[in-house]
Amino acid sequence: MAEYKKAPARGLNRIKALRRVLVNAKRLFYVRVMGMDLHPTVEFSLSAKFDMTYPKGVHVGAHSYVAFEVKILTHDRTRGLYTHTRIGENCFIGGRSMILPGVEIGDGSVVGAGSVVTKSVPPGSVVAGNPAKILRSGIKVEAYGRFPEADATESALVEQGDL
Amino acid sequence: MAEYKKAPARGLNRIKALRRVLVNAKRLFYVRVMGMDLHPTVEFSLSAKFDMTYPKGVHVGAHSYVAFEVKILTHDRTRGLYTHTRIGENCFIGGRSMILPGVEIGDGSVVGAGSVVTKSVPPGSVVAGNPAKILRSGIKVEAYGRFPEADATESALVEQGDL
Amino acid sequence: MAEYKKAPARGLNRIKALRRVLVNAKRLFYVRVMGMDLHPTVEFSLSAKFDMTYPKGVHVGAHSYVAFEVKILTHDRTRGLYTHTRIGENCFIGGRSMILPGVEIGDGSVVGAGSVVTKSVPPGSVVAGNPAKILRSGIKVEAYGRFPEADATESALVEQGDL
Repeated sequence: MAEYKKAPARGLNRIKALRRVLVNAKRLFYVRVMGMDLHPTVEFSLSAKFDMTYPKGVHVGAHSYVAFEVKILTHDRTRGLYTHTRIGENCFIGGRSMILPGVEIGDGSVVGAGSVVTKSVPPGSVVAGNPAKILRSGIKVEAYGRFPEADATESALVEQGDL
Repeated sequence: MAEYKKAPARGLNRIKALRRVLVNAKRLFYVRVMGMDLHPTVEFSLSAKFDMTYPKGVHVGAHSYVAFEVKILTHDRTRGLYTHTRIGENCFIGGRSMILPGVEIGDGSVVGAGSVVTKSVPPGSVVAGNPAKILRSGIKVEAYGRFPEADATESALVEQGDL
Repeated sequence: MAEYKKAPARGLNRIKALRRVLVNAKRLFYVRVMGMDLHPTVEFSLSAKFDMTYPKGVHVGAHSYVAFEVKILTHDRTRGLYTHTRIGENCFIGGRSMILPGVEIGDGSVVGAGSVVTKSVPPGSVVAGNPAKILRSGIKVEAYGRFPEADATESALVEQGDL
């Protein structure tokens, strides 16, 4: 049983190393081949998809995190529109959310999981829902949209033996 | 043409048997390797995804059904939060819905397709939307969140030759 | 560097040709094998999924476009319901939206990306959100739900050298 328990940890580390290689390959492809504007510090899930129809419209700023299954769109077939969609610095774009063409997400904003963002978002906002609405304004976050108390919360969980 | 029509039925049966094997393998992996708390009677789609970042926070009760592309989340990077998300017994979690970290879905509740559930849901509720809202309360459902009239409705369709 | 730049264009053309073959194969499978009612002029993304549980309930009219990850549903397990879901002619069904069982989308309507359409939509409407609401009525669109000004918008972008 003890061996059985150790196995996933080793396995997960290998998966993490492989994931890192794949994320870097995807970033290289998006930036060098497709011409997207992704800061080298941007982190994203492998399942996040940036619009390949008008790739030069995709902009993501430094220390922003794009979570699983996010879709950043830069074109709209119904209107013949090909435009620029911008995510600022220190943002967190929650899993499975969609950023519609032409939207700008201000620096230090957090988009809740599953949101559909149809309008631009001022810096330091939390938005969520479909259509996304502003839930909080004037927030202060650190790199990757992390709230200042996040490290303390996580450390407490580790101390309790929960992580 | 007759042969042509029989082919999908045979094919579908083989696919169903294969699906059963894969679902059981996935359940075993989630429970034995990852440490999730899934009752052995839980049914889920192969495309449903339970949070692998904090797997011991995932709880799904007896005779609940988790449909296609559902995401059950137990962590929030922005807040450093790793917590418990609970789905009761006899629930139906509709396709492509997301259950956010910390949410509890009461026994015998139904979550509509595509919902994003941000708050806990009392037993016997129907919720839907993003953010999900309560549409009905005090409902009575059977195993897998099935309404009592469902069997009669389905039988009538079979009699009409529609199924 | 020049060669490097030409590569994606050649690559994309091959991908487009391959995509065409795959779309036609998928259409043939859906119509001939599964018995869905898709007009031969319907265009759809390879990631769009039409309900395989009750395939004969799927109807999509001439010159309609079904974008990425759309899900058209014709059954509801909780109610034992297997029914007909109809998309009219000249519609555009935006990426990742879900059309729930029994819904009818009128001719020349546009469904915004990420919508969950729970009620029938009159012809010539724009709907979006979860649940989807009517944003505009009485619109006039051309084939594939394209607005009349779309061609001019696109041509202007080409002239500016943006496309």
